[in-house]
Amino acid sequence: MFLDTEQQWPLNAWYHAAWAYEIKDEKPLARTLLNEEIVLFKDAEGKVHALEDRCCHRATPLRLGDVVTEGLQCGYHGLIFNGAGKCVRIPGQEKIPPYAKVRSFPIIERQEIVWIWMGDPTLADEAELIVDFPWNDDHENWPHFHDMYEVECNYMLLIDNLMDLTHIPYIHRNTIGGGNQKGQVDASMDVTPRDTGVHYIRWMEGIVPPPTYVKGAGFKEGTLVDRWQEFEYVVPSTVVQWTGALEVGRGAKDNREQPGGFNIRLYHGVTPRTENSCYYFWTPLNGYKPRDKEATKLLHKEIAFTFNEDIEFLESQQACMAATMEKGFVDIKHDSARLLARRSIELMIRKEATGKLAAE
Amino acid sequence: MFLDTEQQWPLNAWYHAAWAYEIKDEKPLARTLLNEEIVLFKDAEGKVHALEDRCCHRATPLRLGDVVTEGLQCGYHGLIFNGAGKCVRIPGQEKIPPYAKVRSFPIIERQEIVWIWMGDPTLADEAELIVDFPWNDDHENWPHFHDMYEVECNYMLLIDNLMDLTHIPYIHRNTIGGGNQKGQVDASMDVTPRDTGVHYIRWMEGIVPPPTYVKGAGFKEGTLVDRWQEFEYVVPSTVVQWTGALEVGRGAKDNREQPGGFNIRLYHGVTPRTENSCYYFWTPLNGYKPRDKEATKLLHKEIAFTFNEDIEFLESQQACMAATMEKGFVDIKHDSARLLARRSIELMIRKEATGKLAAE
Amino acid sequence: MFLDTEQQWPLNAWYHAAWAYEIKDEKPLARTLLNEEIVLFKDAEGKVHALEDRCCHRATPLRLGDVVTEGLQCGYHGLIFNGAGKCVRIPGQEKIPPYAKVRSFPIIERQEIVWIWMGDPTLADEAELIVDFPWNDDHENWPHFHDMYEVECNYMLLIDNLMDLTHIPYIHRNTIGGGNQKGQVDASMDVTPRDTGVHYIRWMEGIVPPPTYVKGAGFKEGTLVDRWQEFEYVVPSTVVQWTGALEVGRGAKDNREQPGGFNIRLYHGVTPRTENSCYYFWTPLNGYKPRDKEATKLLHKEIAFTFNEDIEFLESQQACMAATMEKGFVDIKHDSARLLARRSIELMIRKEATGKLAAE
Repeated sequence: MFLDTEQQWPLNAWYHAAWAYEIKDEKPLARTLLNEEIVLFKDAEGKVHALEDRCCHRATPLRLGDVVTEGLQCGYHGLIFNGAGKCVRIPGQEKIPPYAKVRSFPIIERQEIVWIWMGDPTLADEAELIVDFPWNDDHENWPHFHDMYEVECNYMLLIDNLMDLTHIPYIHRNTIGGGNQKGQVDASMDVTPRDTGVHYIRWMEGIVPPPTYVKGAGFKEGTLVDRWQEFEYVVPSTVVQWTGALEVGRGAKDNREQPGGFNIRLYHGVTPRTENSCYYFWTPLNGYKPRDKEATKLLHKEIAFTFNEDIEFLESQQACMAATMEKGFVDIKHDSARLLARRSIELMIRKEATGKLAAE
Repeated sequence: MFLDTEQQWPLNAWYHAAWAYEIKDEKPLARTLLNEEIVLFKDAEGKVHALEDRCCHRATPLRLGDVVTEGLQCGYHGLIFNGAGKCVRIPGQEKIPPYAKVRSFPIIERQEIVWIWMGDPTLADEAELIVDFPWNDDHENWPHFHDMYEVECNYMLLIDNLMDLTHIPYIHRNTIGGGNQKGQVDASMDVTPRDTGVHYIRWMEGIVPPPTYVKGAGFKEGTLVDRWQEFEYVVPSTVVQWTGALEVGRGAKDNREQPGGFNIRLYHGVTPRTENSCYYFWTPLNGYKPRDKEATKLLHKEIAFTFNEDIEFLESQQACMAATMEKGFVDIKHDSARLLARRSIELMIRKEATGKLAAE
Repeated sequence: MFLDTEQQWPLNAWYHAAWAYEIKDEKPLARTLLNEEIVLFKDAEGKVHALEDRCCHRATPLRLGDVVTEGLQCGYHGLIFNGAGKCVRIPGQEKIPPYAKVRSFPIIERQEIVWIWMGDPTLADEAELIVDFPWNDDHENWPHFHDMYEVECNYMLLIDNLMDLTHIPYIHRNTIGGGNQKGQVDASMDVTPRDTGVHYIRWMEGIVPPPTYVKGAGFKEGTLVDRWQEFEYVVPSTVVQWTGALEVGRGAKDNREQPGGFNIRLYHGVTPRTENSCYYFWTPLNGYKPRDKEATKLLHKEIAFTFNEDIEFLESQQACMAATMEKGFVDIKHDSARLLARRSIELMIRKEATGKLAAE
């Protein structure tokens, strides 16, 4: 177990299932979400639906089928299911029994993200927590490309990674962590617990900017910058980031939204696949040179390189941790935000379990 | 469990172990049959034998050895076993103890097929059911090539596939299922339970012929045909097929053996490898242009393509079904022959189990 | 279980962990030894250390880190451990708690071999049995290259292989086993149990020399030789070999150390990785043409080819044996040294177990 709770994730929550653009018109998209096989498809009106990826006839995965006018058609014997999971056609047979159906899951599409609700459908409510990330809709000022990696680690190891940035000078020397190692480790760190997770901001003042910042913003050799890293973890599995740097003396701490420096937002959506693997949805948004297409591409490339460095560590850590669960851990000072993040998710899981017990 | 019986296959039955041509003079052939490791070899007189693939000395697989005059020689330390499994030589030692032996299995070679008996050897009898397929011996009128695929699915999923042909217009659009989708789904279906399995015949009258038929028989554009599909499942794991089409008006229903149309026989032998995998032995026999070598090759190629389409579905279905055994299934009208096939095999397994109980 | 003891290897013993040259200055080397993940590194003074390959902070493998002046630094968040496993630095934190440590293992470097002690460290003593192999230090008279193979078999199957050389004429026909098959099987065999294992010597007099000997020593066609194979197994997992041949009539049995023949020593170190896999450290030493660099290279190549032939058998045997543990074995005359080797290792394991029981 990777969390100190019996269950490893909350069920009654919205999870990032896919980027909207991933779901095409003709063909469904299959994902394993929270240990369940799911198939996503877009109906004739353009609305996205999520079904159990298993035909009720002979357990054939529906992902092998086609999107047709009436819904999603099984590719084996042609049964068709609508967005609610109801079978609406059985070839060669007039009457369709009411038990001919598959499970369907609530879906919300918002800000280029397809969110899914895997828990009790009667509790699925748009009012429930969905992270607001308006920059996804603003391609003019925050141009970006979305991306997704499948990572062989428990989803919370990825959240851990984002909650302790002292790893940056060690793992990411060639991109966002180069420059002054000690300065980065000794950054000021302001941590605030939130009802829905944890927020922190780190400042590194008068620091040598790392390679990715230099390439992006064009800082000249010898320039020192004031650099910030602002992160918010929102349960169960989103991290919203605002990072950047301005030349020393420009008053970054008072006003980060000045032109001429480095300034990006990053969206991180981490959805459990199984207990030992997850989907990592990520988007870097170029806020420093929004009219420069090459800058947006370069930023994406730098972040892709950086996250692949993380993945090597995360997957090795996963294997080691899974094999040595009986051994303890040693918390250090820089774990403060990480520990609060863990407390939030465990609290959410315990609340859900208690609610269920009370309801029984 | 893929069958509603504790055991997943009968033991006291002849199974298709190999094509005769696969067993060479010098080297043995290894197969996993019904979860047992088996090694087949041909002795100096050309007779095929089957032994447990494990030297009794130090558990080395005999498949790594060589066929020698006295039998099969272990490649590690040189022990030799004859066709009955008796050790007939131990290098460096005069006396051979009587317990130096490996298990041997009854074998019958007939009609280009090597049949094996995996159950109680005292019950192995040539009089026991072995499917008769005389066309294998008639290369002049039914030219053919044999083939074999290893498929990662329970053997009965492959039998299921052959018992419900409404999958053809969905999976096999480019070969044997193209043309009129509705006509193929709505074909007449005449199902007859047999003591040894189930027989059915389907007729599609006045239908557009599918691509494989057009390529093979040379039907001109606009031609409509009367098409038949006759299948017999014989327990535990053989399906014999006769399929073809004649131009409308030629009286196909009264006489299918007329020249000028499309006319093939197909042998399907499906032998369990493990509970989750099987060997699929298959042979299409060209009865429409028996003197045309290219036609025989083309037919084989079309069927190979078609069966690979099936395998994609069968292996996905296997994975899905194995992971969701606790969920139910919904039988449909077109499952009639499939359900009778399942009833036959389950009956055979139950009879064997009851016989054993009575004997104990 | 591959041995008739509950435990499959002794813990209180020195095992071959690596060749000294494998451990570089900058980067650590990871190995799985006796089911434990170990990381080896060389400190600033050139001394080799072995630590548990798991950072005590967040279970990241230390093998991903770097060797620094103070010790081995975790690549994730920068903690540093010295050779004793004590954490000597936590970035961003002054105080280091005493429980911040990882397990360390005693190491001895001797004769180009790094030996590790995986058992009770209070019992680790240089006086404990370490095989003496002085020829490793004598590159002038016994030139050689070291090598290592990872083999997917229980370590004792490899020892078995070396204890019964009647496999040579079957498996190694193209290198060290060609020539007179019967002569090799019928060689004289003199077996002596030792306190620490077993010793044997085999003589084949007036035999045709095998291909590797002909290539190496340049025996002319038609030459017959007296050939010897002297082997000693030392518990838990070393085999020391002296092999060669002299032309008939030169009195090999009285004096093997004459020039002009074939004469090699071979070091075999077999360390358990898991119950089903091992590391095979091996070195052939050229004692017949020590000034001839090409001869040393050729010898290594011939032995590499030969051992790869063994590995094919060993890995197949492993799979077969593991799947059929309930079936018995049939011992033969040529198993005499092998059975004594097994008795030695089982005795060592039982003594260790009894000692523990007595101490409890």
